[in-house]
Amino acid sequence: MQDKLIEYAKVIVSIGVNIQKGQTLVVSCPIECADFGRMIAEEAYNAGAREVVMRWGDDLLTRMRFLKADNSVFDEIANWLKTFVYEYADKKAALVNIAASDPEYLKGVDPDRLKRNAIATGKELKEFQNRMTRNEFPWCVVSVPTKAWASKVFPGVSQEQAMEKLWDAILTAVRVDGTGKAVENWKQHVERLHKRVGIMDGHNFAKLIFKNSLGTDLTVEIPEKHKWVGVGDKASTGVTFLANMPSEEIFTLPKKDGVNGVICSSIPLALDGTLVKDIRFTVKDGKIIEATASEGLEVLQKKLDVDEGARHFGEVALVPHSSPISNMGILFYNTLFDENASCHFAFGKAYPAFVDTDSISDEELKKRGANDSFVHVDFMIGTKDMKITGITRDGKEVPVFINGDFAF
Amino acid sequence: MQDKLIEYAKVIVSIGVNIQKGQTLVVSCPIECADFGRMIAEEAYNAGAREVVMRWGDDLLTRMRFLKADNSVFDEIANWLKTFVYEYADKKAALVNIAASDPEYLKGVDPDRLKRNAIATGKELKEFQNRMTRNEFPWCVVSVPTKAWASKVFPGVSQEQAMEKLWDAILTAVRVDGTGKAVENWKQHVERLHKRVGIMDGHNFAKLIFKNSLGTDLTVEIPEKHKWVGVGDKASTGVTFLANMPSEEIFTLPKKDGVNGVICSSIPLALDGTLVKDIRFTVKDGKIIEATASEGLEVLQKKLDVDEGARHFGEVALVPHSSPISNMGILFYNTLFDENASCHFAFGKAYPAFVDTDSISDEELKKRGANDSFVHVDFMIGTKDMKITGITRDGKEVPVFINGDFAF
Repeated sequence: MQDKLIEYAKVIVSIGVNIQKGQTLVVSCPIECADFGRMIAEEAYNAGAREVVMRWGDDLLTRMRFLKADNSVFDEIANWLKTFVYEYADKKAALVNIAASDPEYLKGVDPDRLKRNAIATGKELKEFQNRMTRNEFPWCVVSVPTKAWASKVFPGVSQEQAMEKLWDAILTAVRVDGTGKAVENWKQHVERLHKRVGIMDGHNFAKLIFKNSLGTDLTVEIPEKHKWVGVGDKASTGVTFLANMPSEEIFTLPKKDGVNGVICSSIPLALDGTLVKDIRFTVKDGKIIEATASEGLEVLQKKLDVDEGARHFGEVALVPHSSPISNMGILFYNTLFDENASCHFAFGKAYPAFVDTDSISDEELKKRGANDSFVHVDFMIGTKDMKITGITRDGKEVPVFINGDFAF
Repeated sequence: MQDKLIEYAKVIVSIGVNIQKGQTLVVSCPIECADFGRMIAEEAYNAGAREVVMRWGDDLLTRMRFLKADNSVFDEIANWLKTFVYEYADKKAALVNIAASDPEYLKGVDPDRLKRNAIATGKELKEFQNRMTRNEFPWCVVSVPTKAWASKVFPGVSQEQAMEKLWDAILTAVRVDGTGKAVENWKQHVERLHKRVGIMDGHNFAKLIFKNSLGTDLTVEIPEKHKWVGVGDKASTGVTFLANMPSEEIFTLPKKDGVNGVICSSIPLALDGTLVKDIRFTVKDGKIIEATASEGLEVLQKKLDVDEGARHFGEVALVPHSSPISNMGILFYNTLFDENASCHFAFGKAYPAFVDTDSISDEELKKRGANDSFVHVDFMIGTKDMKITGITRDGKEVPVFINGDFAF
């Protein structure tokens, strides 16, 4: 097991953010995951990192703050935090984010506080988010188990067993199989995704139509000059990195005002530490005009109210229902995993997935139909009967998904 | 036990930093001590704190950084850290520092890196240190056990037992006896210390002469208008706080150029994560002109070389050899406890212990003989045969300590 963990840490450092000699690495790490955070640090130093800076987090204190702090603190963010974020972005430091939380760690928190916090954070860190989505520096979101999370994923067993099971699932998902071939596994996988990208780009679809038995019936216009993206981006620093591990998706952006119909979630969404279930959005000219959910609706509503762009879409992502993560049959309550088991959309900010992204201004992005927002929330819609039909620019219909899987 | 911990957290919040409604609290907390850090946060929120901000630390990562980071990082400190420190100082936030470390966590680290780090930190945070020693905001240094530390203090027992024993010792030292009377205990204790302060101030000594069988034979000039200080300062915010818990000392400052003779440490000093044993300083006109030690000499030397003021003294503190902490007979390898079991000196920066501190400039402080430096290192010199003689301004000899205890 220890060997697998070291291999995982090595993979994160070497191909996740592809750390370069003399580069600084920033790791966002829950204090509960300190052991693994230190492993990443060790591997980064071994690979020649200049310095490893930890940005510790603690769900329990975050929850306490949302419940007990003065109401005014949610309208501001600390100067030091802004300085932190831009200081390392300016250095083009690599960024590893360990996303590991109890999916319900903020359950019961006043959604208005969450909303105001999202607005304050969004405003102050907007420029950082832009630079990140433009890949000015390599970044990689990964995960490791925490106790509360493991017990939610595997409720029937002891906490210790749940931790073991979640470690196993995560290591499988990130292709660390104990044979020491994780880097090779990833190279093959990235190639596989890029083949799919090639096919989708080849069609240059104008529209995609999503339909399944859950009630999804949605037409999505795709902007001109869009491109499909699979994990394995090139940062402006010149190195290739993996923004998410795992990553089974290929994605592009929808046209902000070109989405119409109904879209229904197929997996519970852990949103701001609260589970939101059975989401159903009615969408007109790109805007979510009605939202319902069987659980967590208030948190969802507040998120949609953060700004104008929060009610529009920023991502459409294709993941076969037979993806390895989906085949595990595990509901992770963690978007990093669940979104890679399922086709998904995001409401909020779009990744600038255009063929000429590097050379176009924010203004031009907007003109082409890229949505902007302080938020970006992925939610899962894939089912085993998902049917996706592509409409080419010259009006031809092409099957993209049949029965939950790629048609080609 | 849980009740005692909660009481300890309450005491820290209510009289340690004396948190006020709407005030921000910053807690420096090792991640290993997160449970207790959260207790402090909870009590602070209950007392009406606006927000509690954690500044997490991790000895293992700090060690890794000192061993493996690029050599250049030790000549700088991050902008965000400067911003952090001054942002909360400007807010007059209360500051709790949980000082809990393996006393040897930096053993073997290149002392030159420690020295350069001390210089870089000292330069950038000098203004903050000044504001702290002038009590612009309430601050309180406390401690809780960590595993590695507990095992060093109690090497003969299991780690679990060692943790229990260290908790017992700490709770006893901070007067949390389980009767719920800790606040009352502290009030009485502060009064007792202030009586001693009154007696010493009454004599207005010009000199103190320290002698014992370890070899200490030191004459210390005390500046005019000095005052003695016992725990229970008033911050510029108007509230009384306890800078250290425990605190058994009363202290003042020596005249920078007025110390002569030999001074020998009586307890090992945990300095920069390395134990320094059997220190012997030869002092001429206030300057340490020779330093020897049986262990850790290189780390000590580098500390003395940080700047000009590091070789001069900044504090002389009186603690009876029969102090409650001394009577425990435990060597804590942690200055917060060991300095309160023993008379001690500090080399480096002086606390501005003058009767008119609030109204005098840094320039005037210097003129009066207050030492300045980036460092302030307490080291213990008390023994059961310590003899201290005071010389009044008109030349009278007054016994201050006989056989390790106050003569009055």
